[in-house]
Amino acid sequence: MLQKKNAVLVDGVILNGPIMDSKAGEKFVEDACKIIMEEVVQKADDITEKVCEWQAPEKLKQILDLEMRDTGECDQKVLQLCRDVIKYSVKTNHPRFFNQLYAGIDYYSLVARFITEALNPSVYTYEVSPVFLLVEEAVIKKMIEFIGWEEGDGGSVSNMYAMNLARYKFCPEIKEKGLSGLPRLVLFASEECHYSMKKAASFLGIGTENVYFIKTDERGKMIPEELEKQVQRARKEGSAPFLVCATAGTTVLGAFDPLDKIADICEKHGLWFHVDASWGGSALISRKHRRLLHGIHRADSVAWNPHKMLLAGIQCCALLVKDNTGLLKKCYSAEAAYLFQQDKFYNVSYDTGDKSIQCSRRPDAFKFWLMWKALGTVGLEERVNRALALARYLVEEIKKREGFQLLLEPEYANVCFWYIPPSLRKMEDGPEFWQKLHQVAPIIKERMMKKGSMMLGYQPHWGKVNFFRQVVISPQVSREDMDFLLDEIELLAKDL
Amino acid sequence: MLQKKNAVLVDGVILNGPIMDSKAGEKFVEDACKIIMEEVVQKADDITEKVCEWQAPEKLKQILDLEMRDTGECDQKVLQLCRDVIKYSVKTNHPRFFNQLYAGIDYYSLVARFITEALNPSVYTYEVSPVFLLVEEAVIKKMIEFIGWEEGDGGSVSNMYAMNLARYKFCPEIKEKGLSGLPRLVLFASEECHYSMKKAASFLGIGTENVYFIKTDERGKMIPEELEKQVQRARKEGSAPFLVCATAGTTVLGAFDPLDKIADICEKHGLWFHVDASWGGSALISRKHRRLLHGIHRADSVAWNPHKMLLAGIQCCALLVKDNTGLLKKCYSAEAAYLFQQDKFYNVSYDTGDKSIQCSRRPDAFKFWLMWKALGTVGLEERVNRALALARYLVEEIKKREGFQLLLEPEYANVCFWYIPPSLRKMEDGPEFWQKLHQVAPIIKERMMKKGSMMLGYQPHWGKVNFFRQVVISPQVSREDMDFLLDEIELLAKDL
Repeated sequence: MLQKKNAVLVDGVILNGPIMDSKAGEKFVEDACKIIMEEVVQKADDITEKVCEWQAPEKLKQILDLEMRDTGECDQKVLQLCRDVIKYSVKTNHPRFFNQLYAGIDYYSLVARFITEALNPSVYTYEVSPVFLLVEEAVIKKMIEFIGWEEGDGGSVSNMYAMNLARYKFCPEIKEKGLSGLPRLVLFASEECHYSMKKAASFLGIGTENVYFIKTDERGKMIPEELEKQVQRARKEGSAPFLVCATAGTTVLGAFDPLDKIADICEKHGLWFHVDASWGGSALISRKHRRLLHGIHRADSVAWNPHKMLLAGIQCCALLVKDNTGLLKKCYSAEAAYLFQQDKFYNVSYDTGDKSIQCSRRPDAFKFWLMWKALGTVGLEERVNRALALARYLVEEIKKREGFQLLLEPEYANVCFWYIPPSLRKMEDGPEFWQKLHQVAPIIKERMMKKGSMMLGYQPHWGKVNFFRQVVISPQVSREDMDFLLDEIELLAKDL
Repeated sequence: MLQKKNAVLVDGVILNGPIMDSKAGEKFVEDACKIIMEEVVQKADDITEKVCEWQAPEKLKQILDLEMRDTGECDQKVLQLCRDVIKYSVKTNHPRFFNQLYAGIDYYSLVARFITEALNPSVYTYEVSPVFLLVEEAVIKKMIEFIGWEEGDGGSVSNMYAMNLARYKFCPEIKEKGLSGLPRLVLFASEECHYSMKKAASFLGIGTENVYFIKTDERGKMIPEELEKQVQRARKEGSAPFLVCATAGTTVLGAFDPLDKIADICEKHGLWFHVDASWGGSALISRKHRRLLHGIHRADSVAWNPHKMLLAGIQCCALLVKDNTGLLKKCYSAEAAYLFQQDKFYNVSYDTGDKSIQCSRRPDAFKFWLMWKALGTVGLEERVNRALALARYLVEEIKKREGFQLLLEPEYANVCFWYIPPSLRKMEDGPEFWQKLHQVAPIIKERMMKKGSMMLGYQPHWGKVNFFRQVVISPQVSREDMDFLLDEIELLAKDL
C-alpha cells in the first residue's frame, strides 16, 4: 500500500486518502447480494410466489419512498428499499410470466451480467475491453455460421442499423450530403412486421409513408407476388426502392416470411435483403426447426436477439452483416482522434467502437457467450426444441377444451387464442358476440394481475378482437404450467 | 407446489417438470458471486493490483478458451473462465484508471445493477415495470430541477434523440414524408463538440456536411459571434437552420460553451437550443461549480450522463426536454397495439415505452436513483467538489515539476499536459521538437499498459501533438494518486 502523505486542502476539500469507506461498501454489497439470492434467484422457480404484487401507480408511489433528498439514507434503509423494489417489481423469471417475448432465468447469463456490472467496461477499444472484444468476435462468428454465411461482420444493434447500412450501400453520399433533394427512398416490409420499422424510417429521415407494407396471407406471411407488385409500383412512381425487410418470427402471430422467394425478388431488383429474425432467429440453433428460416443465408443482413428465446438477458441484440469489405466501418466511422488513435502499439483492428453508433457500449455478447460455453450448442438446441414442443402441447390442449379457440395453427412459440366465457358460448356469431368477446381478455388480465398468479399478453389484431398470446420460452416451464394456464383462465373467468 | 402430472412426449421431448436443475444453478451463482466479490469488488481500491494484465489480441485468444462447442462445459470450468475473464479485463474500478470519462466504483449503483440483472425487466409498460417506471419519473423530475426548468419530460438516450426531436419540432411532417425534396437542414455545433454529432447527422439523413462547425476560442469555447455569422450564412444559402448544439464539458479539453449568449442567438433566430452536458452536467449538482453551466435553464433539451462523473455505471444517459406538451411521444410514437393497449385497467400514461426509439430498454434510472437515495444530494455534491479540487491540485503540481507542461488552464476535471522527457528539454522549439514530442506519449502509454500500473489517455488535437488527458472522477482517488501519476510518468520515461 502507498503511504499516506500530509493533508492538502484545495477549495475547502481535504484531498488525502480516499473518501469512501470501502469496507462498509463491501459489506453493503454482500448484504444486498444475500437479498438478491434469496428474493430473486432462489424464488425464480417457485410457483407459490406471485408473479407480481400489483399496486396502482398512485398507491405504489406512496408505498415506495421515491424522493431523493439532500442527505443520504443509512445502509439499513437502503437495503429495505432494495427489498421493496424487488417485492413490487414483476418477476420476469417466474415460470408463469408469459407476457413478452422474454422470460425465465439462465444462471450462466446472469453471472456474466453480474461480472459485467462489477467490471463496468465499455466496448470501444481493445485496450479498454480486451476480453469482451474477443468474446464479441467469437459470438458473431458463431452466429454467422448458423445463418450459413461464410464470412461476415456484426454489431450489437438491430433493424434501424440495417436500414441505415442498406441506405449507405445504395448511396454512400447520403452520409455527407443527407437526403435533401434526393429522390424518395422506399423500403418494403410485411403488414405484420415489428413497429420498429416505422420508427426507424421516421428516425432516419426516410419517412413512415415510404415504408410500403406488403400484404400477408392468412397465416401472417408476406405474399411474394404482392412484394413484386409493390416494387414495380415504387419504380413507376419514380421513387428509389432500396430495401426489403422480411420477418422471421412476427411479434404477434410468430409467422415466418418465405425468405427464399423474397431473396429471388431482391436479387432480381438489386435490393438489400434484411431479415428481422429478432424473435425467430433462435430456431436456427435447432436442427429440427431451422427449416422455418430456409433461405436466410441469402440475406444481406440479419437481426437476431438472443435475449428472447435463448434467455441471454435484456438486452442482447445482434446485427449480422454479410458484407466483409468493411461496410459497417465505412458507414459509421467518425474517426475520433481522442479514442481511436492510430499510433497504438497493438493491432487497432480490434478497436471496433467506430463501427457502431454508440460511444459507450456494454459488452452484451459476453452473457450470451458464457451461457453458450456452459450449455453447449446442444443445450441451447434442447431449449428451443422444448419450447416449441410445449407450444405444440398447449395447442392440442386448447383444441380439446370447451371455450378455448385457436386463432390459427401456430408455426412457432406464439399460441394465439380466445377464451369464450360460459355466458357467450350459446350466442350467435355476429357483431355483438365479437364486441362482447373483445372485453373478455382485459377483464381476465386485470384479475390475473391483481391476483399475481400469472402474466399473459393480449391484443386486438387486424380486425380480430382481443385475444391472448401465450409465448413459451423458459426451460423452467413444463406441461404442468400449460395446464395451469388454461385452468387459471377458466377459474378467473367462470362468472363471465 | 403443484403436483407433477403424467409424462407427456411431444416431438421427442418430455414435457413434464422443468429441465433446469435450479439447485445447481443457485449454487453456481453463489460460487460466482464469491469470485466477483473477491476479485473485483474487494480489489477495487487495492493499488497493489494491476489496472490490467496486458496481453496482445493474438496471445489473449490463445489464453482464453473462446470457442463455443456443441457440448457445454462443467460448472468448475465455467467458473475458471469467469476468473480468466476478470483477470484479463481492464479494472475500470481501479484507482489508477484515468483513461476515459468514467472510473471508480459506487457500491449502491452496483447493487442496483445486480438487482436489475437479476429481475431482468424491460421498461415500456407500467404492468411490466411498475417500480422502475416510477423511479425513472422521480429521477427525471429531480434532474430537471437541477437544470432549472419548472417542468419537462425525459428519456434515457441522448444527443441523436435531441436532434431528431428538434427536427420534428421544426417540421413534424418529416416523420411521415421524410427529408426527400425538402430544403437542406443545417445544425450548428462547436469544433470541439463530441463526434456523436456527426454520427447523428449522418444517421438521421441530415448529412455530416450540414453540421456547421463553429470556431472556438483558445480555451475550446464556442465563439458566439461566429455562431451568429454561420447562422446568417446558412440563411443566405437558402438552407434551413434548425438547431444549435452547445457543449457543456467537451470531451478532450473539458470546455464549457457560453450557454447564456448562445441562448440569445437561438431565441433571436428561433432555433432549438440543445446542450450536450453529457460530461459537464454533473457540475449542476455542485453549488460551487454550477456557474459553469450558467444559462442552461434556457435550453430546449439537455443530455446528461450520470454514468460519467457521478459513477452510476455504464450506461446511464438522460435526455431531458423542456417541452411538456408531449413532443417526445408525438415524435416517437408508433402505437403498437400489442404492447400499448388502451383498454387497460390502470392509468396508461405510465406506459412510457412509446416515447423512445427502443422497444426493450433497461431501467438505467434505477441505479442512479438508489445511489442518490444512499448518498443524498450532498454526497453527490461532495464527490463533484472533490474531483474538481483534485484536478486543481494536479494542475498546481504540474506547474511545479520540471518536464511537465500544461496545455491550458482547465476549468473542469480534464487536465491536459505534455511530458517532455529529459532528452528533449534542451531542444529548440521547432517542428523537430514537436515531432519528437508527438512520439513520447504513445511510448509511455505502451509501457504503463504492459506494466499495468495505471491507464491514462492521450491524443493529438487541432495541430497540437500527442498530449495526456488526465480525468479525475473517482472518490477512491486522492492526492497520493495524483502524485503517483506524475512520479510514474517520470519513472516510465526517464530513458527517453
